[in-house]
Amino acid sequence: MNGAGSLLRSLIDNDVDVCFSNPGTSEMHFVAALDDVPEMRGILALFEGVATGAADGYGRVTGKPAGVLLHLGPGLGNGLANLHNARRARTPVVTIVGDHATTHARYDAPLQSDIVSVAGTLSTFLRVSASPNDVGADAADAVAGAMGPPSGVATLILPADVSWGEVSSPSRPTTHHVARAVVDPDNVRAAAHALRAARRPALLIGGSAVASEEALDDAARIADISGAILMMETFPSIAARGAGTPQISRLGYLAEFAAAQLDGVDLILTVDAAAPASFFAYPAFESNLVPEGADVMAFAGPSQDVPRSLAALADELGAAAAPVAPVLSSRPDRPQGRLTSEALGAAIGGAITEGMVVVDESNTGGIHVAGATAGAPRHDWLTLTGGAIGYGLPAAVGAAVGRPEVRILCLESDGSAMYTLQALWTMARESLNVTVVLLSNRSYAILNLELARVGAVAEGSAAASMLDLTGPELDFVSLAKGMGVPASRAETADELVKALEAASTAEGPVLIEAMLPAGLS
Amino acid sequence: MNGAGSLLRSLIDNDVDVCFSNPGTSEMHFVAALDDVPEMRGILALFEGVATGAADGYGRVTGKPAGVLLHLGPGLGNGLANLHNARRARTPVVTIVGDHATTHARYDAPLQSDIVSVAGTLSTFLRVSASPNDVGADAADAVAGAMGPPSGVATLILPADVSWGEVSSPSRPTTHHVARAVVDPDNVRAAAHALRAARRPALLIGGSAVASEEALDDAARIADISGAILMMETFPSIAARGAGTPQISRLGYLAEFAAAQLDGVDLILTVDAAAPASFFAYPAFESNLVPEGADVMAFAGPSQDVPRSLAALADELGAAAAPVAPVLSSRPDRPQGRLTSEALGAAIGGAITEGMVVVDESNTGGIHVAGATAGAPRHDWLTLTGGAIGYGLPAAVGAAVGRPEVRILCLESDGSAMYTLQALWTMARESLNVTVVLLSNRSYAILNLELARVGAVAEGSAAASMLDLTGPELDFVSLAKGMGVPASRAETADELVKALEAASTAEGPVLIEAMLPAGLS
Repeated sequence: MNGAGSLLRSLIDNDVDVCFSNPGTSEMHFVAALDDVPEMRGILALFEGVATGAADGYGRVTGKPAGVLLHLGPGLGNGLANLHNARRARTPVVTIVGDHATTHARYDAPLQSDIVSVAGTLSTFLRVSASPNDVGADAADAVAGAMGPPSGVATLILPADVSWGEVSSPSRPTTHHVARAVVDPDNVRAAAHALRAARRPALLIGGSAVASEEALDDAARIADISGAILMMETFPSIAARGAGTPQISRLGYLAEFAAAQLDGVDLILTVDAAAPASFFAYPAFESNLVPEGADVMAFAGPSQDVPRSLAALADELGAAAAPVAPVLSSRPDRPQGRLTSEALGAAIGGAITEGMVVVDESNTGGIHVAGATAGAPRHDWLTLTGGAIGYGLPAAVGAAVGRPEVRILCLESDGSAMYTLQALWTMARESLNVTVVLLSNRSYAILNLELARVGAVAEGSAAASMLDLTGPELDFVSLAKGMGVPASRAETADELVKALEAASTAEGPVLIEAMLPAGLS
Repeated sequence: MNGAGSLLRSLIDNDVDVCFSNPGTSEMHFVAALDDVPEMRGILALFEGVATGAADGYGRVTGKPAGVLLHLGPGLGNGLANLHNARRARTPVVTIVGDHATTHARYDAPLQSDIVSVAGTLSTFLRVSASPNDVGADAADAVAGAMGPPSGVATLILPADVSWGEVSSPSRPTTHHVARAVVDPDNVRAAAHALRAARRPALLIGGSAVASEEALDDAARIADISGAILMMETFPSIAARGAGTPQISRLGYLAEFAAAQLDGVDLILTVDAAAPASFFAYPAFESNLVPEGADVMAFAGPSQDVPRSLAALADELGAAAAPVAPVLSSRPDRPQGRLTSEALGAAIGGAITEGMVVVDESNTGGIHVAGATAGAPRHDWLTLTGGAIGYGLPAAVGAAVGRPEVRILCLESDGSAMYTLQALWTMARESLNVTVVLLSNRSYAILNLELARVGAVAEGSAAASMLDLTGPELDFVSLAKGMGVPASRAETADELVKALEAASTAEGPVLIEAMLPAGLS
């Protein structure tokens, strides 16, 4: 067995059995080893950003890492934006970056670059595998590093000669399981005390506090008994939603909205969430969104057992056994007429089925979707946690691989879609059950909003043209067809509803180009 | 005037008047400032890898930097692979990376990341602009850093508040011109002596030694009088080619071919080129391609005036006034029948016109192109200098912007095309005169070759499937149409010839999908 075989075997032994791959010459022994370790499912992507985003989506829905195989420094660069998103979502991912042979580095060949420095900016675990004998243990350590706590991106750099070299005396891969501790009783009591003492407390939850219905219920029980406003972080990694889950609002993306939500609050108890701060800075707004004079208390964080800590706090407060007012089941009326963003929201609200996973990168066009889907059957919702656009289509690939039993609904805006559109090909190749609703407004509409906030800019100006996606207009039906994904265009609300109905029983991926009004709507 | 305006003004003052852009919120003031500085041509790309690759292509054909505007760390990541190529090609590029406001960094907002560490891996100049008053001088210094010598990627990180802040006391941007020195006379004499003393010398030239016909002529004069084998580096940044230029072979990509070319050589005089080493390492081959016992002497490098140094060496040797045997004008016969890679080469050989710029990322499918085009009218040839695929289409964008007076011919392989296909949209938007010949062999054929070198792998195996681009096949005619580029498919040699003829008089971009035999051909 060579180093590559040992690596694959160790990943399998540590329950990592999917590898999203963009191999190159320096990874050929890894690729060849796939034939010897058939338990590993290799999934080809046509661009590294697809592979890393797929691993992010997979890790969010399964709670365990996928492998990602990248080719040298440029491959890591191409995958960096979605690894950034995974880092911010604390998604467990095991990234394997193939490198030149250790004996080759001295020649400074064209593809040589400083992989360690780039990987160091995003990795919770980073190691260069030094010998074929070490690779098995390195891979086990990488999986452990990805799982944490806290979980995150583990990067193992695999020189080609370590990959092709024979294993003479294999290291014994050890599986690590680090238990997450519940917040200790003193801190539980202190949080309960603070909630009781506050005039107008807010409970700001995120991470694993919103990932399960049970954790959400416990958070709602705490809010109910303490009178706290219950809020979710702006861009959760994965959130349980739908009828029967607690009523909860998301902290607004725009600083002025978030400030209004937090107005008058004197205590913010954060649970696996950062203190409120605006996404971007603006000349006219404070970045810090904590109201003047309010206290921020961090209750449980990403290295702790957040759900059980929430349960302990609810019990300490003597909360009721269940939330007072969960979301009632409701569906928007079937929309008709023009395909506005309201109509799109209603159509999506009617299309969600029990257990569905929604990957949301709908941005401005999807502004009405959250409200229209709140009472839909129980579903999970992934958002752009790290803010680097181009996450949606790849994450849908990974979610579909991780949850093959349900259909994935991917709400994708046009500007973001173009970052990692190659994901459609992998959806077709693997026959993944993904419905992509492509929100076409022919604009970087969010930036038009931001440009307006910066100062008045005339339409047709040099500046405005930088945010305009017309001339030529993108035709996503042709683009999807070019990558083997059946596609149709919806010009009206009725056409969108019918296309969503047809997609619900399709085998494999389907793309629906939803033609929204141009620009901000 | 704010910092952004000062930056743009300083770039214009320093002869940087094109900026390939992918802006985000933190760059909105930069975008707004485009309306105040109309001399700056902002060109929108739908993905950062397109913007950076375009800047690489532009810099190669013009010898001066374009600006590239990127959004935060993830934007830099997306642009990294083509900045890697620019670094390797020593292309002057001024990269401006927008960052969060300096006052915002402490909140560790979702898009916060370590930009400096990533940029540090590829920049010859790196600075974080500290105040609006400094931006003008920072931009001038960045242009100087990009121009060198040696030239390369200059990165200026622009925090949002430095961009939006008012300039109260502008720094005076100083334009730097650092002259490149000719190799000193002692070293010229030493090189002449070494060439005379060698039994079988080789002259390995690259960089600016191959960029102009004059430098090539001087190199050929040296080879003629010294009996040296004249060779060009494997992947030059830009090479002058065609009838009337000196006969010169490129050092082979595969180690075994290069070793054969260098067999028996006892001196390698390198001129703006690295000593021969293989592109990748292999278990069965040496990475070092310098023949046993041969000397390597570096004559002129990227910080020197290479063309004038070559002229000095030719004169020192008493070389003839002109090369003995330049390439004669010749055209392949018009190909007919099956569209093999030979037929493709012949069709391209017939399509090259005087002054054309060829951007070559044809990889395996283009194996016969170099031979078939050697006697074509005088043209320039760009190659994948840094080895990071996905450079071709973006570089063609930049070449077309930099040389609007000629048509650009972009030879692009299917696997590489999918990395940065969004470049087609910018070609359409800017109505760039680019003919893209898309070499479709439905395979990462180069990797099939490499996999075969690693060990026998059965077709249809898990490993082989990682290199196979069928299931579904990509349809580049639909993909081009989806981005507004007229496209057709050539199934035969005759269809390709006719499509190339039609493209030669087109306005704006045209894509021709050349259907080569599947896999290696």
